Amino acid sequence: MLGKMFRVSLLGESHGRAVGVLIEGCPPGLKISEEDIDEMLALRSPGSIRFTSRRREPDKAEIMSGVFKGYTTGAPILILIRNKDVDSSPYEKIRFKPRPGHADYTAYIKYRGFNDYRGGGMFSGRLTAGLVAAGAVAKKILSLESIEVYAYLREVGGVKSTIRDVKELKKAYESPFYCPDLDAVEKFREILEDAARAGDSVGGVVEGVAVNVPVGLGEPPIDTLEGDLAKALFAIPAAKGVEFGSGFKLAEMRGSEANDEYVIKNGRVVTLT
Amino acid sequence: MLGKMFRVSLLGESHGRAVGVLIEGCPPGLKISEEDIDEMLALRSPGSIRFTSRRREPDKAEIMSGVFKGYTTGAPILILIRNKDVDSSPYEKIRFKPRPGHADYTAYIKYRGFNDYRGGGMFSGRLTAGLVAAGAVAKKILSLESIEVYAYLREVGGVKSTIRDVKELKKAYESPFYCPDLDAVEKFREILEDAARAGDSVGGVVEGVAVNVPVGLGEPPIDTLEGDLAKALFAIPAAKGVEFGSGFKLAEMRGSEANDEYVIKNGRVVTLT
Amino acid sequence: MLGKMFRVSLLGESHGRAVGVLIEGCPPGLKISEEDIDEMLALRSPGSIRFTSRRREPDKAEIMSGVFKGYTTGAPILILIRNKDVDSSPYEKIRFKPRPGHADYTAYIKYRGFNDYRGGGMFSGRLTAGLVAAGAVAKKILSLESIEVYAYLREVGGVKSTIRDVKELKKAYESPFYCPDLDAVEKFREILEDAARAGDSVGGVVEGVAVNVPVGLGEPPIDTLEGDLAKALFAIPAAKGVEFGSGFKLAEMRGSEANDEYVIKNGRVVTLT
Amino acid sequence: MLGKMFRVSLLGESHGRAVGVLIEGCPPGLKISEEDIDEMLALRSPGSIRFTSRRREPDKAEIMSGVFKGYTTGAPILILIRNKDVDSSPYEKIRFKPRPGHADYTAYIKYRGFNDYRGGGMFSGRLTAGLVAAGAVAKKILSLESIEVYAYLREVGGVKSTIRDVKELKKAYESPFYCPDLDAVEKFREILEDAARAGDSVGGVVEGVAVNVPVGLGEPPIDTLEGDLAKALFAIPAAKGVEFGSGFKLAEMRGSEANDEYVIKNGRVVTLT
Repeated sequence: MLGKMFRVSLLGESHGRAVGVLIEGCPPGLKISEEDIDEMLALRSPGSIRFTSRRREPDKAEIMSGVFKGYTTGAPILILIRNKDVDSSPYEKIRFKPRPGHADYTAYIKYRGFNDYRGGGMFSGRLTAGLVAAGAVAKKILSLESIEVYAYLREVGGVKSTIRDVKELKKAYESPFYCPDLDAVEKFREILEDAARAGDSVGGVVEGVAVNVPVGLGEPPIDTLEGDLAKALFAIPAAKGVEFGSGFKLAEMRGSEANDEYVIKNGRVVTLT
Repeated sequence: MLGKMFRVSLLGESHGRAVGVLIEGCPPGLKISEEDIDEMLALRSPGSIRFTSRRREPDKAEIMSGVFKGYTTGAPILILIRNKDVDSSPYEKIRFKPRPGHADYTAYIKYRGFNDYRGGGMFSGRLTAGLVAAGAVAKKILSLESIEVYAYLREVGGVKSTIRDVKELKKAYESPFYCPDLDAVEKFREILEDAARAGDSVGGVVEGVAVNVPVGLGEPPIDTLEGDLAKALFAIPAAKGVEFGSGFKLAEMRGSEANDEYVIKNGRVVTLT
Repeated sequence: MLGKMFRVSLLGESHGRAVGVLIEGCPPGLKISEEDIDEMLALRSPGSIRFTSRRREPDKAEIMSGVFKGYTTGAPILILIRNKDVDSSPYEKIRFKPRPGHADYTAYIKYRGFNDYRGGGMFSGRLTAGLVAAGAVAKKILSLESIEVYAYLREVGGVKSTIRDVKELKKAYESPFYCPDLDAVEKFREILEDAARAGDSVGGVVEGVAVNVPVGLGEPPIDTLEGDLAKALFAIPAAKGVEFGSGFKLAEMRGSEANDEYVIKNGRVVTLT
Repeated sequence: MLGKMFRVSLLGESHGRAVGVLIEGCPPGLKISEEDIDEMLALRSPGSIRFTSRRREPDKAEIMSGVFKGYTTGAPILILIRNKDVDSSPYEKIRFKPRPGHADYTAYIKYRGFNDYRGGGMFSGRLTAGLVAAGAVAKKILSLESIEVYAYLREVGGVKSTIRDVKELKKAYESPFYCPDLDAVEKFREILEDAARAGDSVGGVVEGVAVNVPVGLGEPPIDTLEGDLAKALFAIPAAKGVEFGSGFKLAEMRGSEANDEYVIKNGRVVTLT
């Protein structure tokens, strides 16, 4: 489970009846529709960026509880996304032949052979659809505080993109590969096409940015914002690293470069950069 | 949420699409079918004992995740029970006229008017169907340790039934009013019919008994077996008191009567009574 | 652990170095001193009511963290109460002779003989000192909302006391046996002296009352106020039953007697009784 | 709180009475002494590596509960490390002048000025002493399963060290800067001395390695091993990034390079590299 007040639990399997999410502790009175969720699910859909997967499924959210007359009620919210367009037959043969880079073998041992091995079962990247649905609801709460959250594809195969400001960032979801730096996109495309031709795949880095975040979120010393975000991000099966601010770059920097001094600017305390 | 390893979250509303339960942390390899759950849901059904409610619905469980080829997989188990046979129109008028003994008014204030008021929404006794479904799964785990759990109607309107032994207890679910003491049943029936004629209802006491429970369950000093059971039982909207062993009787007893001495009997440590 | 925002964990053993409590999630800015806590610990002290125990210890709280310059800081608050006046030698003999009505035997099995058996170890009623210390802090938060919490001894050995109103209730802590009904106190005294002469003990009922409680506390369907209070109360080793409102009395009542109708009185919604 | 079974809560402030840790859910029967913990605290001590801090304190653990006759009892374990050698006077002036790269300003806002600002209060790196103490206990459990955990300084200011095998790794704690690659150590020393001369600091990377880890730890889809480790690591105030396996390197790699195929070797399933 993620969260203490707004709590998120994922469920489902790639080739079972559905994937989904149970959200507990959501405040009442948020306007939310299945279409709101579908819109965000479409951004997650493998079809929206070529290269990342073979399956094409138009995901449709069903709000099973916790929303009444178009508004959240304060009750637990269950959102389901049915699985369709699923051919499980190829998975019978991997049952005893685990794929590298997947959890097939681990799952077989851990669950003593009872795991649903079709399409990776609950280890499938498809379970992130539940995270996206929870995100669609969470964004409604954030918007009450004018907090905005963005993400873009920062790096593919070692090539980095450059984003100058938040205005550019806001265009990410309409951009190819969710990257508003069109020069970088051209290079991404080449790298990905090369890899696809070789029947291979390529790693990348996604950067998330939150705007208007109030000071002091999280509950130290243990339930820090960084810690809770990191845990949530590692629920994405493909995630292998999480960094904040300059992150691993800091290992090559001196404190004087890394530290951002507090100054007073127009009567408000801000960081220098 | 109930539990630390085997975790139970309820969801749904009385007159929404469904009620249900999400079970996390269930071990793999338990044989479970929708019919197993339906059987226990039938025991809960208002139809199986007259007098307790007006609605008659043959509840059918749908296992949405966590079970594959008839066995639990170790993944989260979502069980849904669809709502049918629901006429919500009478509830429009109670929206602003809270029923005594129900959570209508509390819910209206707490959720600022956004709560689903139809049939009590998530405060309805119907949500206990999710608890029953979780119980059907939990019983599979208990049976691995030969632990058996029974319950019977011990008291109605001040009249008590008498159960002599476990053998009698096992007949509870086939008995009228779930009470194997047929003399008491006759009195229960009279009391309930009297109340029903007067358009009234009557309180009662249910006793649960667990057999073959190993020594030392629970995690003191806080997460005690008693504490966790009590919390679970108060998730039943109608529950107003929980007691263990002699319970409130102890207030009238001396320690010498209440304490059960440990003795050695046939080479095993047992309590005297 | 008790609680989700304001979280309470007990620690310590009856004859170890100390008992105490860790409080997490306490808001900053509450004025609290060790004397505030000692005052409440004195109410818990076995010395303040004769008959309940043999040990006399003037408990002194030490705030080890989370309070700075007399105010809570928002950091975890650790409160310790040292054990003194402890003669553990009598406990060596009970190591293999469990006392009836205590957790000695259960603890021996559960912890495979490694439990601290002196004075009941962590199963001792002495651990409730940590609960009292947490209560001293919690009361500071409640007082911000004008919520007051009282308790009094309602029943001993089957004899009931009568409290007419909150004004009377407020005198409980200055009354003998914490019971403001002096007629009942006389009977309590007789019952307890009789039992003490016979080397016996007697059960009782404590009633707690909260005043100015806002509507809608708790997070249904599972994390209800009743459920969480019950769990907390069962952390008191001697507690064997918990009831709310009319509780087990309801088993003898009809709905029409038990339900309290909502009416409008001076422009506010209140219950009839 | 970290963990579900073995649960860890940190407490204390840099310049308060103590820092420490409360461990709940620890199994009984583990042999543990204050000296065991002191030994690991010595490795954490700023004195053991020059350059990382100004304070020199020989940390001494006090086990306040949960250990009896040298063995864990199954009760909550409280470990305190008293603060000594503390001069708080310089901190009075930073009260209103937050230091860059520290939580001073954030804490001031979040806790409305009530935070203990001396030495960073609960945001001080000194709170990791509690994590180390919990680690000393956790290692006792791991050793029952022959699991070993090591860490070494892999990178400083962009310079990387090379470790060839586990045998070399085991020498880390006796090596200067906890790095067994002595060539790298020479470069680390230069980099750190340069920075120290300039009154500056330098970033680095620590690599942790666990040996004999069983397959299938963690509870997906959310409570993954990676997620829970990451959350724990971000409780270290200086941590800015966490990666597993090839981590951010993967962003520059193709799948064919990154994936490690499963093969059968001497009758066991292992990964190719």
